Amino acid sequence: MCQLLGMNCNVPTDICFSFQGFAARGGQTDEHRDGWGIAFFEGRGCRLFVDEQPAITSPIAALVQRYPIHSTHVIAHIRKATQGAIALENCHPFRRPLWGRYWVFAHNGNLEGCSLKPGPLFQPIGETDSELAFCLILEFLQKNFPEGKPGLGQLNAALQAMTAQLAPFGPFNYLLSDGDDFWAYCSTQLSYVVRAAPFRAAHLIDADLTVDFRELTRPQDRVAVIATTPLTDDETWTKMEPGQLLAFRDGSPQA
Amino acid sequence: MCQLLGMNCNVPTDICFSFQGFAARGGQTDEHRDGWGIAFFEGRGCRLFVDEQPAITSPIAALVQRYPIHSTHVIAHIRKATQGAIALENCHPFRRPLWGRYWVFAHNGNLEGCSLKPGPLFQPIGETDSELAFCLILEFLQKNFPEGKPGLGQLNAALQAMTAQLAPFGPFNYLLSDGDDFWAYCSTQLSYVVRAAPFRAAHLIDADLTVDFRELTRPQDRVAVIATTPLTDDETWTKMEPGQLLAFRDGSPQA
Repeated sequence: MCQLLGMNCNVPTDICFSFQGFAARGGQTDEHRDGWGIAFFEGRGCRLFVDEQPAITSPIAALVQRYPIHSTHVIAHIRKATQGAIALENCHPFRRPLWGRYWVFAHNGNLEGCSLKPGPLFQPIGETDSELAFCLILEFLQKNFPEGKPGLGQLNAALQAMTAQLAPFGPFNYLLSDGDDFWAYCSTQLSYVVRAAPFRAAHLIDADLTVDFRELTRPQDRVAVIATTPLTDDETWTKMEPGQLLAFRDGSPQA
Repeated sequence: MCQLLGMNCNVPTDICFSFQGFAARGGQTDEHRDGWGIAFFEGRGCRLFVDEQPAITSPIAALVQRYPIHSTHVIAHIRKATQGAIALENCHPFRRPLWGRYWVFAHNGNLEGCSLKPGPLFQPIGETDSELAFCLILEFLQKNFPEGKPGLGQLNAALQAMTAQLAPFGPFNYLLSDGDDFWAYCSTQLSYVVRAAPFRAAHLIDADLTVDFRELTRPQDRVAVIATTPLTDDETWTKMEPGQLLAFRDGSPQA
């Protein structure tokens, strides 16, 4: 399977600290060494790094760990291949345009025997169940709202409906964003932590590194970090419920 | 305006040497400092780096200069903004999926007063004339060949037809690839060099750097490098003709 990391904030924030612990799971503290990727939204723009090398040895992952890229919407993934070869086209996150925005998707899980097929406009490029699911989701959204992006209520309902079609085929935890909205869906395993004032220090599980967020933040800052399993051992992470779709905005989960 | 760099080869080759000279034009030897980008195809996968910083100071461009990524189809761009703010979403190359492949496009020129508008499935994300042209090209291809990619003859004819609709609006030099085929279109300015046995040394115009390709190649290797203006001062570059669309394959222009 794989692991997911997401971040949603009210001000552009770098993910160097969280990504350092996460990348360690890509071959050092855990076995997810079949590629990795990360997407940073910056306004309407989207910076996407993918690599079929293990995150722990990839020179591009090393750059992402030390070069602070500030973003309000980030989705990252480390891969342990189930379906599809170890190859660049099978690395998450996947990025496709819809309604004049980039959409980014990463998946942890394994959908087996899914007979749903997207039409010619939403053909996958690689071989993964994950990219297929992403194509099906975008096609469903486009067909339901051909003129453009609807409001969040309608989008949430459409995502729930399409997710309900896919989730019976196997574990289907995912992160999805268009740089404006941000969703986390928990099928089996996903947790989040919200960092807000009063800030304190946090210590990574996967690397002996502590950051004191009091030194790096302003009182109004708010950051939600979402991950397959908690990244720190001294913060309170909230486990999402199976079947729960959460939209995040400005660093807060929306009830 | 901007500058273009492309590479098409018969075996995966790194572009470090050419990119080092090209990146120098992104703020050091020339004025194209409003962002840059590069796309590397690796099989069906595509690695895309874009940055709104000048190529000459971007940490990501520094990585691309020193980290050899091997690819048979590469498209790079340095930007001097004409239309659209200096922002990530306006950096070339642009990448969109069609027919189960990524398509990549970069443009040197300036289209003014173009009244053509793509439909909802091919909406641009940024504000450039270039991304608009790319969306129009892909939409034209999709509408003409809705079931999938046709043969090269039909594709060439379709590209010529759509290019003829766009070129009257201003300079429109472009590079386009889906990782399998590779096109260069010259509206006003584009040159190429083919490196093949017997190999020799070459010296960059924009940096005092010489590479002896005899030390790096095998006899069967063949590499075409396409650029807005020649990158080396001791090789024979061929100037393309205005209105010329050239398909490259395995490092050779196809007559």
